[in-house]
Amino acid sequence: MTAPDVVVARLTEALGERVDTSDAARHAARADKSGHSSAGPALAVVNARSVADVQETLRIATATGTPVVTRGAGTGLAGAANTGPGEIALCVRAMDRILEIRPDDLLAVVEPGILNADLNDALAREGLWWAPDPASRSISTVGGNIATGAGGLLCAKYGVVRDAVLGLQVVLADGRLLSLGHRSVKGVTGYDLTSLMIGSEGTLGVVVQATLKLRRLVAGDVCTLTAVFADVRAAAAGSAAVTASGIQPAVMELMDAASLAAVHDLLGLDSPLAGAAQLTIQTDGPAAVAEAESISRVLRERGAAVVVSGDPAEGERLLGVRRAMHPAMERLGTTLIEDVSVPRSALPAMFDEIARIERAYGIVIPTVAHAGDGNLHPNFVFDGPDVPDTIWAAAAELFHAALRLGGTLTGEHGIGVLKRRWLGEELGDDQWELQRRIKQVFDPAGILNPGKVFTP
Amino acid sequence: MTAPDVVVARLTEALGERVDTSDAARHAARADKSGHSSAGPALAVVNARSVADVQETLRIATATGTPVVTRGAGTGLAGAANTGPGEIALCVRAMDRILEIRPDDLLAVVEPGILNADLNDALAREGLWWAPDPASRSISTVGGNIATGAGGLLCAKYGVVRDAVLGLQVVLADGRLLSLGHRSVKGVTGYDLTSLMIGSEGTLGVVVQATLKLRRLVAGDVCTLTAVFADVRAAAAGSAAVTASGIQPAVMELMDAASLAAVHDLLGLDSPLAGAAQLTIQTDGPAAVAEAESISRVLRERGAAVVVSGDPAEGERLLGVRRAMHPAMERLGTTLIEDVSVPRSALPAMFDEIARIERAYGIVIPTVAHAGDGNLHPNFVFDGPDVPDTIWAAAAELFHAALRLGGTLTGEHGIGVLKRRWLGEELGDDQWELQRRIKQVFDPAGILNPGKVFTP
Ligand SMILES: Cc1cc2nc3c(=O)[nH]c(=O)nc-3n(C[C@H](O)[C@H](O)[C@H](O)COP(=O)(O)OP(=O)(O)OC[C@H]3O[C@@H](n4cnc5c(N)ncnc54)[C@H](O)[C@@H]3O)c2cc1C
Ligand SMILES: Cc1cc2nc3c(=O)[nH]c(=O)nc-3n(C[C@H](O)[C@H](O)[C@H](O)COP(=O)(O)OP(=O)(O)OC[C@H]3O[C@@H](n4cnc5c(N)ncnc54)[C@H](O)[C@@H]3O)c2cc1C
Repeated sequence: MTAPDVVVARLTEALGERVDTSDAARHAARADKSGHSSAGPALAVVNARSVADVQETLRIATATGTPVVTRGAGTGLAGAANTGPGEIALCVRAMDRILEIRPDDLLAVVEPGILNADLNDALAREGLWWAPDPASRSISTVGGNIATGAGGLLCAKYGVVRDAVLGLQVVLADGRLLSLGHRSVKGVTGYDLTSLMIGSEGTLGVVVQATLKLRRLVAGDVCTLTAVFADVRAAAAGSAAVTASGIQPAVMELMDAASLAAVHDLLGLDSPLAGAAQLTIQTDGPAAVAEAESISRVLRERGAAVVVSGDPAEGERLLGVRRAMHPAMERLGTTLIEDVSVPRSALPAMFDEIARIERAYGIVIPTVAHAGDGNLHPNFVFDGPDVPDTIWAAAAELFHAALRLGGTLTGEHGIGVLKRRWLGEELGDDQWELQRRIKQVFDPAGILNPGKVFTP
Repeated sequence: MTAPDVVVARLTEALGERVDTSDAARHAARADKSGHSSAGPALAVVNARSVADVQETLRIATATGTPVVTRGAGTGLAGAANTGPGEIALCVRAMDRILEIRPDDLLAVVEPGILNADLNDALAREGLWWAPDPASRSISTVGGNIATGAGGLLCAKYGVVRDAVLGLQVVLADGRLLSLGHRSVKGVTGYDLTSLMIGSEGTLGVVVQATLKLRRLVAGDVCTLTAVFADVRAAAAGSAAVTASGIQPAVMELMDAASLAAVHDLLGLDSPLAGAAQLTIQTDGPAAVAEAESISRVLRERGAAVVVSGDPAEGERLLGVRRAMHPAMERLGTTLIEDVSVPRSALPAMFDEIARIERAYGIVIPTVAHAGDGNLHPNFVFDGPDVPDTIWAAAAELFHAALRLGGTLTGEHGIGVLKRRWLGEELGDDQWELQRRIKQVFDPAGILNPGKVFTP
């Protein structure tokens, strides 16, 4: 270990003004959007502008034994980008160029720092899109989306990040540059390290370039419908009935009573009926209208009050209620946003478990779900900056319930620091150990995002 | 290293009649369908009937330092299942049960030895299917499909194996059982070892159970069309024009003049026009007829002679011409079936390269392609059992051309023994070394399929 000031001096010598040691920058690097912060300010922030900058930073980090935390836009919800004392925050946000768009091959080559929405604006001009659409698309980077394996509203129909990356360029801990994958849609040469990088949360290497698999923009209409049910279990069963009917909506979001009430309050809408839960569904493509009609039949038969709209502006307004969840929760206190995912048929059972945990702990857990793919976001709300022990105990019960139902701790946000305690329970000791050893192959000195994903 | 007879004695003691040491079985294990054989008969064949059998075999193999080659149906085309002297062939073909089919969650849990077509017959009764459809679907196993990362005719539209597996149970070299992935459609807990196993060709572990992601059977018609072009370049450009038009056919296969002539000869059909190449295209789903009409317009404008049929039997007959490629080649001599894959727009350029290599080496290279996804199968035909050096030299030029065009050595067949010499050229030295070290994490003693994928 080299003295911190020597590390900063070497970085500054090599990278000049790209190295920011201001208090403001070092403090900002402490936190992502999870509500959790590192123990103190970062050693320095490097604002990389090129692959060479990333390589140089990592060579210095390796030579001096200094930890490096890669950072996109810092919108993560698991504390994975949080940078602490003695650690370099390597920010790739400024590497935001689109290097290539190929409509004929349905691919784009981009730098990691481009915002998802900026990329999609450029693609839309060519009639194309990159399907992963986290609700944070206008504030999160493509590199961060890849490093977290992000999902979103449309992914039941159009896939997650894992389905939408052909190849990556990655800088290893020691500064070497690797090219993984290829530009062809098919390829089985050697091990699939592209997939291994997806969701690796900055622990295996730094993504400095990505070859993305695109789709053509979907032609036709979009229909939006809302369906209000007497309670959340009925809404969950309703979404399962839609899936079982064989129709694949583009969006199918569920809000429970507490979420709905909080958002209506924020937006100044009439209070919903007590206990009522809501599905918000969008269909798209040439059959959008017919599909929306079939879905509304299925849901009315199950007692829902259904409103259908073919008007895009009205559709956006209806979906806006779901989108306002995050600000609505922020008004209530500090929020721990959980992210369990279960098989679709287990959604009603998972809501039963949440109700049980609410009763056992005497708390309310406002929950929204990407119902089309079984991914729930239960929100734990509390006062003050730190998650109280009872909330962690309740969250642990939530994790165990999801695992029992055949699901997982995290559908799309990742492990970061907040869930590393439970990683071993999901993976089992043997797999946990195997994964740690894979990490060591990429990063033998353990300088890439240490303490994240795996407990120290 | 324990003496071979001691290893066999221990296997027999533990596994009884599941151990087959007959000459016939030991010889049969020497080869897959690549035309390449190992140096001599296997030590023994273990016909595993349960996970415990697989674990027991691997424990004995680890204790005695004996190599193990996992085998599904032995239909591979890269020599990856070929088992040689001193090696145990661990055959999982008899582990062929369907453990669960869940229409509501669109998943099935199966043992690895079930044939792809047998699984799909059972799924069809529930209105479901598992999309990966190698041309060998009626003779290859789901486990083998997973271990090779198989593709097929439908995969441009419906995806490859990589897109269709949720989780795996894997036995490691030392006999420990791991559960990878989950039953939920989303999940980003830790590294994606499920994807790492896909295409790993028996070098990382033995797949003993798979949780598969299913689709609903596609409703509606199927339309089949054939389009005959004056030459292969025009046919390749035609397929690119279809892709560029935004229509996604279910099947789009290309046959060059030499392939077409060989198949017509085999099937006793009229000889095609000299030099003519053909596209065979299928559309499916509710818009099948309209899409077939649009495609035939696109192709007629480019000078093709197009025949369209909405009759399923006629469609099967037209596609049968493409399916007869393998037997047609077998009549001509020993065949080395290559498998390069390039970005779709590079298909015409790749055919130019093949023509150049044909001229340079004075040979004919009958080539078919999954044109919808840029995956070509150039066939090298020769006399006698061994690939002549000049053929390898020509194949090497083919690989280099594919890599230059942004593609890969192998789109779906894998590296096995036949392509391991070129693996390093595609991966680069650093990545090759990294992949070897990942292999060592799973299999420190190096007993799983040694000499395959990586050069010894
Ligand atoms: C309001 C709101 C809504 C959200 N909605 C969703 C949602 O719908 N779905 C969803 O999945 N997530 C959602 N998120 C979470 C977050 O936006 C995603 O995790 C996003 O992918 C993070 O991108 P980022 O650029 O902000 O990454 P960061 O937060 O900067 O980093 C996240 C992780 O990725 C690593 N990383 C970043 N860039 C690289 C790189 N180039 N190379 C290697 N590692 C890298 C970091 O080290 C860290 O481990 C939401 C967040 C907010 C605040
Ligand atoms: C006529 C014909 C047409 C073909 N068409 C196609 C095609 O269209 N697309 C395509 O992709 N392939 C095709 N193939 C190749 C072959 O069928 C596939 O590679 C298939 O996936 C192999 O399955 P298998 O059960 O025969 O595996 P095997 O040949 O027995 O084994 C192949 C590899 O997988 C490993 N393996 C097998 N089972 C397991 C397991 N349970 N756990 C771990 N490792 C395992 C073996 O060790 C070996 O490395 C074709 C082959 C033929 C003969």
